[in-house]
Amino acid sequence: MNDLPQPVLVVGTGLIGTSLALALRRRGVPVQLEDRDAAAVAVAVERGAGQSRTGDDADPALVVVAVPPAATAGVVDAALARFPSAVVTDVASVKVPVLAALEATGADLARYVGGHPMAGREVSGPAAARADLLDDRAWVITPHPAATSAAVSAIQELALAVRALPVLMAAEEHDRAVAVVSHAPQVLSSLLAARLLESSETAVSIAGQGLRDMTRIAASDPSLWVEILAANAHPVSDVLTALRDDLDHLLAALDAADGVGAAALVDALRRGNAGRQRVPGKHGARPAPTVEVPVVVPDAPGELGRLFAAVADAGVSVEDVRIEHVLGRPTGVVEIAVAQGVAEPLAQALRAGGWEVRA
Amino acid sequence: MNDLPQPVLVVGTGLIGTSLALALRRRGVPVQLEDRDAAAVAVAVERGAGQSRTGDDADPALVVVAVPPAATAGVVDAALARFPSAVVTDVASVKVPVLAALEATGADLARYVGGHPMAGREVSGPAAARADLLDDRAWVITPHPAATSAAVSAIQELALAVRALPVLMAAEEHDRAVAVVSHAPQVLSSLLAARLLESSETAVSIAGQGLRDMTRIAASDPSLWVEILAANAHPVSDVLTALRDDLDHLLAALDAADGVGAAALVDALRRGNAGRQRVPGKHGARPAPTVEVPVVVPDAPGELGRLFAAVADAGVSVEDVRIEHVLGRPTGVVEIAVAQGVAEPLAQALRAGGWEVRA
Repeated sequence: MNDLPQPVLVVGTGLIGTSLALALRRRGVPVQLEDRDAAAVAVAVERGAGQSRTGDDADPALVVVAVPPAATAGVVDAALARFPSAVVTDVASVKVPVLAALEATGADLARYVGGHPMAGREVSGPAAARADLLDDRAWVITPHPAATSAAVSAIQELALAVRALPVLMAAEEHDRAVAVVSHAPQVLSSLLAARLLESSETAVSIAGQGLRDMTRIAASDPSLWVEILAANAHPVSDVLTALRDDLDHLLAALDAADGVGAAALVDALRRGNAGRQRVPGKHGARPAPTVEVPVVVPDAPGELGRLFAAVADAGVSVEDVRIEHVLGRPTGVVEIAVAQGVAEPLAQALRAGGWEVRA
Repeated sequence: MNDLPQPVLVVGTGLIGTSLALALRRRGVPVQLEDRDAAAVAVAVERGAGQSRTGDDADPALVVVAVPPAATAGVVDAALARFPSAVVTDVASVKVPVLAALEATGADLARYVGGHPMAGREVSGPAAARADLLDDRAWVITPHPAATSAAVSAIQELALAVRALPVLMAAEEHDRAVAVVSHAPQVLSSLLAARLLESSETAVSIAGQGLRDMTRIAASDPSLWVEILAANAHPVSDVLTALRDDLDHLLAALDAADGVGAAALVDALRRGNAGRQRVPGKHGARPAPTVEVPVVVPDAPGELGRLFAAVADAGVSVEDVRIEHVLGRPTGVVEIAVAQGVAEPLAQALRAGGWEVRA
């Protein structure tokens, strides 16, 4: 905290800017606020996010630009000029376009380091801000050759000050990473969900957990996502083009009803197995092998509480929970994922306690 | 139950056949068992699934063929010939190929009605069977013009006898339905997960819940899925070809960095919203609007039990539960989905009880 440049000016008191300001105030850091919408600043001030900056205030040592992506580079450029000794960062969700635009303006890039706190909500604006929005979230920081190490350190300190987890990546790597782990999945979820528009009511009624998981993010806000996809068009296109080629390959394999086709299908499915192994599990760690223990839980108040109390009594740590939804009947199955070795002891303990465990 | 033709012969004592037989025995129905693997029959008998059929036994009134998909039509055909007054069904996960093969043999199709109990496990064989495997599961029954209504009723009675939920569909409709709600999602999950093989460790480390949900079923068994995909190649190809065309359209929109491209992106995302609305929620019903209440839960035994007990004390019914996994720190956020109107009262009640609710 001693190394965090202060005071901090937050330009843009929307959801992220105000949440960041609230988190900094929680740590006692002096925060100045600006927004071209005076009402938004007033809400942020009212919520305790800091003070509206005036001409009499001391110059900020650190400026955080938290405005919409398309406006980001211009506001960063202006901030670098206004405050000639301040470090300036931004929080736009796509990094290469911002850096490229700044390079084109001839701005003093030694004092600029971009970033992307990986947090968001379905809602926006300062009224929806929360001091803990960034807690435990990855905050990607994107150094570039012209930036000083002091500027990079300042943004790392900023992330740590608000309890986020700094992760260093080049801007290009960040944009490719979010294309594959976030933007391409969004597109595929939307395209898959759209296929249901041509299915009968009965067909859709037999859907299970797999389809529910695969279409959850298809409910996302189109106006937000069109901006993100447009800003990161090239990396997203690269991922989706490669996937489209894989899909064409697989379609050819489906048409070839012979051993060659089957081999290609198996290969695609095996590559999927291997890729899934790379997805981080609980606490960002490599996924430990877990087993799901399915327990029948009556749809009545208090049953989930009783169940998890029983799990705790068995001394077992829960890795994940899913509720199985079943067709037509008021009963449900809760899948409790636990480490491989404790699944059977847990099942025995729960059965001894009167729970119906499917195994 | 009075209308269920008895005795029942189960041909194929694998996971589904033995589970079905156990469920029928639970209801007191006489069950005969056959399998070309005598050891498998012995295990099923030992587990109480019925008796190994001998030449002295009465002819079955109902035959359930539960053998691998590729062998199904031949075994059904033989059963129709061996037992000239029995109703015969099967449980293969793809229905058109079975019916088409039987039509080609000139079998007595008046007594045949196919079916597909929508249940499965990661394991197989009679030792893994459970009497409750089919409880609350949809059991798709696929009548065809040549089948008698008595034969259709018999299979409905069978489904109800084992506590499954009969759903009537034509074979073609079933195969198209599982292509879109199960087989295409499996392929997309595998293809998306495979894209991670080309990503850096750091890139994958910033993945969030969206990617985890989208790649969960990519962990499925390739040898099982290659059979399913090959058997349902045409309907799966139809769904995936339409999706590939949508994807090409979207890739063109990403390349066109102008208003026309943005409009196409928004359209694709909106269609995804609409499709997601069709996915059934809890208890097979249309998804009621729910809101997620995020609660910070210390990673310690008993905390989940305490939390759900508190939710029950607040008198709130839980619609769904997800555990948010965060990067690097031993703390977690549990997202409790509840009906829209009770989210705020629940949040207040939990905060009053000392829980940290993010909102």
